[in-house]
Amino acid sequence: MNVITSNKIDIVKAETSKITSVDFDNLAFGLVFTDHMFLCDFKDGKWQKPQIMPYQAMSIEPSARVFHYGQAVFEGMKAYKDENDKVFLFRPDQNFERINKSSVRMAIPEFPKEYFFEGLETLLNLDKDWIKSGIDNSLYLRPFVIATEPAISASPANEYRFMIICSPAKAYYNEPVRVLFAEKYSRCADGGVGFAKAAGNYGAQFYPTNLAQKEGFQQIIWTDASTHDYLEEAGTMNIFFRIGDKLITAPNNDRILDGVTRKSVIQLAEDLGIECEVRRVSVTEIKEASRNGSLKEIFGAGTAAVISPVSAFGHNCEVFEIVENENSYAKLFKSTLLNIQHNLAEDKHGWRHEVI
Amino acid sequence: MNVITSNKIDIVKAETSKITSVDFDNLAFGLVFTDHMFLCDFKDGKWQKPQIMPYQAMSIEPSARVFHYGQAVFEGMKAYKDENDKVFLFRPDQNFERINKSSVRMAIPEFPKEYFFEGLETLLNLDKDWIKSGIDNSLYLRPFVIATEPAISASPANEYRFMIICSPAKAYYNEPVRVLFAEKYSRCADGGVGFAKAAGNYGAQFYPTNLAQKEGFQQIIWTDASTHDYLEEAGTMNIFFRIGDKLITAPNNDRILDGVTRKSVIQLAEDLGIECEVRRVSVTEIKEASRNGSLKEIFGAGTAAVISPVSAFGHNCEVFEIVENENSYAKLFKSTLLNIQHNLAEDKHGWRHEVI
Repeated sequence: MNVITSNKIDIVKAETSKITSVDFDNLAFGLVFTDHMFLCDFKDGKWQKPQIMPYQAMSIEPSARVFHYGQAVFEGMKAYKDENDKVFLFRPDQNFERINKSSVRMAIPEFPKEYFFEGLETLLNLDKDWIKSGIDNSLYLRPFVIATEPAISASPANEYRFMIICSPAKAYYNEPVRVLFAEKYSRCADGGVGFAKAAGNYGAQFYPTNLAQKEGFQQIIWTDASTHDYLEEAGTMNIFFRIGDKLITAPNNDRILDGVTRKSVIQLAEDLGIECEVRRVSVTEIKEASRNGSLKEIFGAGTAAVISPVSAFGHNCEVFEIVENENSYAKLFKSTLLNIQHNLAEDKHGWRHEVI
Repeated sequence: MNVITSNKIDIVKAETSKITSVDFDNLAFGLVFTDHMFLCDFKDGKWQKPQIMPYQAMSIEPSARVFHYGQAVFEGMKAYKDENDKVFLFRPDQNFERINKSSVRMAIPEFPKEYFFEGLETLLNLDKDWIKSGIDNSLYLRPFVIATEPAISASPANEYRFMIICSPAKAYYNEPVRVLFAEKYSRCADGGVGFAKAAGNYGAQFYPTNLAQKEGFQQIIWTDASTHDYLEEAGTMNIFFRIGDKLITAPNNDRILDGVTRKSVIQLAEDLGIECEVRRVSVTEIKEASRNGSLKEIFGAGTAAVISPVSAFGHNCEVFEIVENENSYAKLFKSTLLNIQHNLAEDKHGWRHEVI
């Protein structure tokens, strides 16, 4: 076993790589993982020395609080490789800040910044061959924290594990998606944990999404739980509406995730001279805009999906088709973002973080 | 190894029991587990043959969906032993129905009734020495289901594990609790998963509860997320208010757990000739009743806590003390319930389920 003990991370390297067994042209999202994983345990009131080891199953007590009380948060990030084999992350400071914001809301101790970046960078160096160049390729990174303490009283754990696992990715949604505007089910409440990347927010969407899929919609756009009148986010994506030449997206609040792609799109709109209003968007407004022909586009924005165009939406048993726009903002933002991420365009806001 | 293969469950018995190392007079809740656990895996579209094995840590992939998306549900039950060493469960049919109701909402496949009861009864027979007689003693049973499939796309898993672990218990809350009425934070939304015992509902309460504890309150009584005007439940307990001689509790809805102890109290109230209204209860009504002296009691009802009297509540920076009532309903319901559960009183509704 190849054990490297540095001052910062204890590293056990994989004896052989699985990389030759992977078909990089036909990757389903989130099924294949790289050779290594990063982990760091919290116990005795502090984060212990981080480790990197071969990706593998782990041993955990059935009484670990994560299984019972969903005390768990995560992040989604990507690493990109340019044609010169340089490797970049995109605004990783945002993910670092957000995982700790999520952790605070879920009563999980915050993770130290130096461990987060040291872990990511060391892991990416070890598994850099898994990052393929080309605009459609990336390495999806999944930092997450789980409550590991074996105790089932309903209170915060005293022991946690922070991990990063990595999965090579192609574009997430290849086709435009049909979405349903939520009328009955809700994703979260004011004063709840919707703004956090808390594990339970996602599992709670599966059943309503299954129902929507039976009606021919791939995703749900969640509305406010009190009235279902205002459009909020899509669960794995924030949502943008284009009426005429103007872009509109819902403001962040207790219920809406502060998406990194969302805030990048808002900035890029400013750079490109596209007006973008951050304000509440009502279902009525979007239906009227669709009826009078001023609704030009709807698209989702998120790390996994990047930019995902919407081809139709359903509400109250009606379906509204969206005609594909020749001069599409979705395409423009997607290519602009991907070019910045892959070091093919100027990075005027300093969003690229060079790792290798 | 003592392997028993029956038609129904594959059993591996523990070689030695840990029971002699346990101080049954000084048990913290949910820290000590019995010698055996029950598990059953769902894969290839069906629940596989159940197993009982020594309680132990298990191997699970870091990419298991439960860690990332909180796709997990649980139940809380208790087994009781009478003075003749007969062992009983209390209304286990209710827990069985509810775990499947929770599972449906979390897009988890329903668990077969025969496996649920066969598992519980076989496990209790193996670990019956862990159930101590006496009114303050019980064996807490924790059935739960987790998504084990190693895949991090945000969609329902294809593989699950159903487990039952058992922990000997003393009375959960020994002292009356001080509670805070929620004004800012929420437990769940209309159209959400609050009615289900979904893991994420619990972790989401830890942070606001920590804040309440800093103000001297042990628990929060959650209010409706839209207005915070109506009192709903306490997260691990349903809540009853006594105004004059009348009992009031909130109706079940999307947000409130359909508690087994709650519905038993409602039935016992009828049996005892105590008027019980199931209707919305406003914060204003309870504050006024406290001010005019008609608020006699508040108590929580739940499997872990049984009946937990409330000694004070806080709202909007005011604290309202509740004078202990000589002729307490909380005490009456607690002793009535415990006597039925421990086979010390007539069981006119057939709530006891004899196991051994």
